[in-house]
Amino acid sequence: MNDTMVTLVGNVATSVEYRETPTGGVARFRFAVTARRWDRERGAWSDGHTSFYTVFAWRALGANLAASVSVGEPLVVHGRLRVREEEGEDRQEGRRRTFVDVDAMAVGHDLTRGTAAFRRVVKGETRTTERQGDGVEGGVERDPWEVADAPKALAPVA
Amino acid sequence: MNDTMVTLVGNVATSVEYRETPTGGVARFRFAVTARRWDRERGAWSDGHTSFYTVFAWRALGANLAASVSVGEPLVVHGRLRVREEEGEDRQEGRRRTFVDVDAMAVGHDLTRGTAAFRRVVKGETRTTERQGDGVEGGVERDPWEVADAPKALAPVA
Amino acid sequence: MNDTMVTLVGNVATSVEYRETPTGGVARFRFAVTARRWDRERGAWSDGHTSFYTVFAWRALGANLAASVSVGEPLVVHGRLRVREEEGEDRQEGRRRTFVDVDAMAVGHDLTRGTAAFRRVVKGETRTTERQGDGVEGGVERDPWEVADAPKALAPVA
Amino acid sequence: MNDTMVTLVGNVATSVEYRETPTGGVARFRFAVTARRWDRERGAWSDGHTSFYTVFAWRALGANLAASVSVGEPLVVHGRLRVREEEGEDRQEGRRRTFVDVDAMAVGHDLTRGTAAFRRVVKGETRTTERQGDGVEGGVERDPWEVADAPKALAPVA
Repeated sequence: MNDTMVTLVGNVATSVEYRETPTGGVARFRFAVTARRWDRERGAWSDGHTSFYTVFAWRALGANLAASVSVGEPLVVHGRLRVREEEGEDRQEGRRRTFVDVDAMAVGHDLTRGTAAFRRVVKGETRTTERQGDGVEGGVERDPWEVADAPKALAPVA
Repeated sequence: MNDTMVTLVGNVATSVEYRETPTGGVARFRFAVTARRWDRERGAWSDGHTSFYTVFAWRALGANLAASVSVGEPLVVHGRLRVREEEGEDRQEGRRRTFVDVDAMAVGHDLTRGTAAFRRVVKGETRTTERQGDGVEGGVERDPWEVADAPKALAPVA
Repeated sequence: MNDTMVTLVGNVATSVEYRETPTGGVARFRFAVTARRWDRERGAWSDGHTSFYTVFAWRALGANLAASVSVGEPLVVHGRLRVREEEGEDRQEGRRRTFVDVDAMAVGHDLTRGTAAFRRVVKGETRTTERQGDGVEGGVERDPWEVADAPKALAPVA
Repeated sequence: MNDTMVTLVGNVATSVEYRETPTGGVARFRFAVTARRWDRERGAWSDGHTSFYTVFAWRALGANLAASVSVGEPLVVHGRLRVREEEGEDRQEGRRRTFVDVDAMAVGHDLTRGTAAFRRVVKGETRTTERQGDGVEGGVERDPWEVADAPKALAPVA
């Protein structure tokens, strides 16, 4: 409830990291979304600002992402947006850093840019195919990389 | 402006039809979205209502969809929603039918359900990779199948 | 899960109907969304297609809507989209009608078009302010007007 | 094109600032969105994480917001999301700060929380009611407060 859903159309900016955690596997990567603007004067489209997000994907989606997605590929990412302000590595300075995360609920290669051969993963091959972000378990409100490495805070994916 | 954007997560319900039109190729298929509900009493998820949409995809996206997508496959579909009320085949009766269309802007196989091998289509292989629904040309407000076949109205994709 | 969220920006097309049901009060009205298109040739915006939706709002939101909203007013409506295909009044013919519903989760007057004076309703004045569409109770998959009047089916809001 | 649309449901966290710029009036405020989670164990809803955004609204929407909205009021905000990473005040350190902005296209008081009396602003009373974010003019990719005050960078709205 009150979840902020977003759909991002853009490109994978860093390779997909994957790790196992006590609550299941999780994938993480940076994602770039570049606005396109219609230039009235020139009568043509041009690139606008690029926004960057950190995408997290759990369980089956995380595992399939790690097996399917490479840097530079175009994706459609649908999930929950969350803005976190946290003390970073430099917490001694009392400074806060801002993280813009998306907990992915569905992700696919954008067929506007190419073709894809899909292979269904049979239930049972993965621990669960129940979708991340089902919203009743409280969600993950910290970066699992940071949690796993605590108390030594991990630098955010740059 | 005032466009109603939707992101549908569901399954392809009919095979992808593809045809050339004077303004470029277009693909069309029916798409099923089934809500999942948390049943408090049973403590488990169960299927809810299924909504059906007709998805249209133009130019590069249409061609790549036709080359990549089969009935039953899980997709993420992002695009513009439009509700049309039109006289159907039975126009002699003065009855109107309601069509719920999505003009797709980005579509991908849902990696929650399986893996995918992506192959980028190099620009120039297709007429244009400029995304459908760029919003400045007026959009398509009729089903191109109906337009192409007029005056004999085509039955909607069931 | 798999809910299709939409945000509609448009105008109230019919007066708000309100009724009490065993599961709380519910408001219903028709809502019109008109696309605006940039006409490259004329260098100006023009009206495009108008889509119509039936909006349902429950409990506190329904009661406040009934108290605040008149025909013609501009609103922002955020909620869950559902397409229902049902036998209508003419079920003897075996024909199906399509209904495009939005279960509203948040609604406000669009301040692009005017000003508004807001008055908070203190909790306790209404049965509950818990938001409709919290997603765990199964949702409402039929029009409560039809359910209330069953077995005599009510004509849809035209 | 490729715009990331979001709909935020939450509360105004700072008073609305308004200023005139060469391209029209603009309003700015901070906005807080608190997730609500279903706690299976307790069988009740509880507050989750709070995300903060900076909302910008131009022309008629900005002026009407400034005239209608106070700190603490509940709103529905629909607009374009943008993540900016910029050198802040402390640029001498070579550090970057992250800003999460929404360019509002439609905003209203959330009637889930109270009632509202709406008054339409007649066209002509304001310079233009054409909606901000019409997408063809290139958009605003910097905070107008910063631009107006350049080269002395203004601290972000805290």
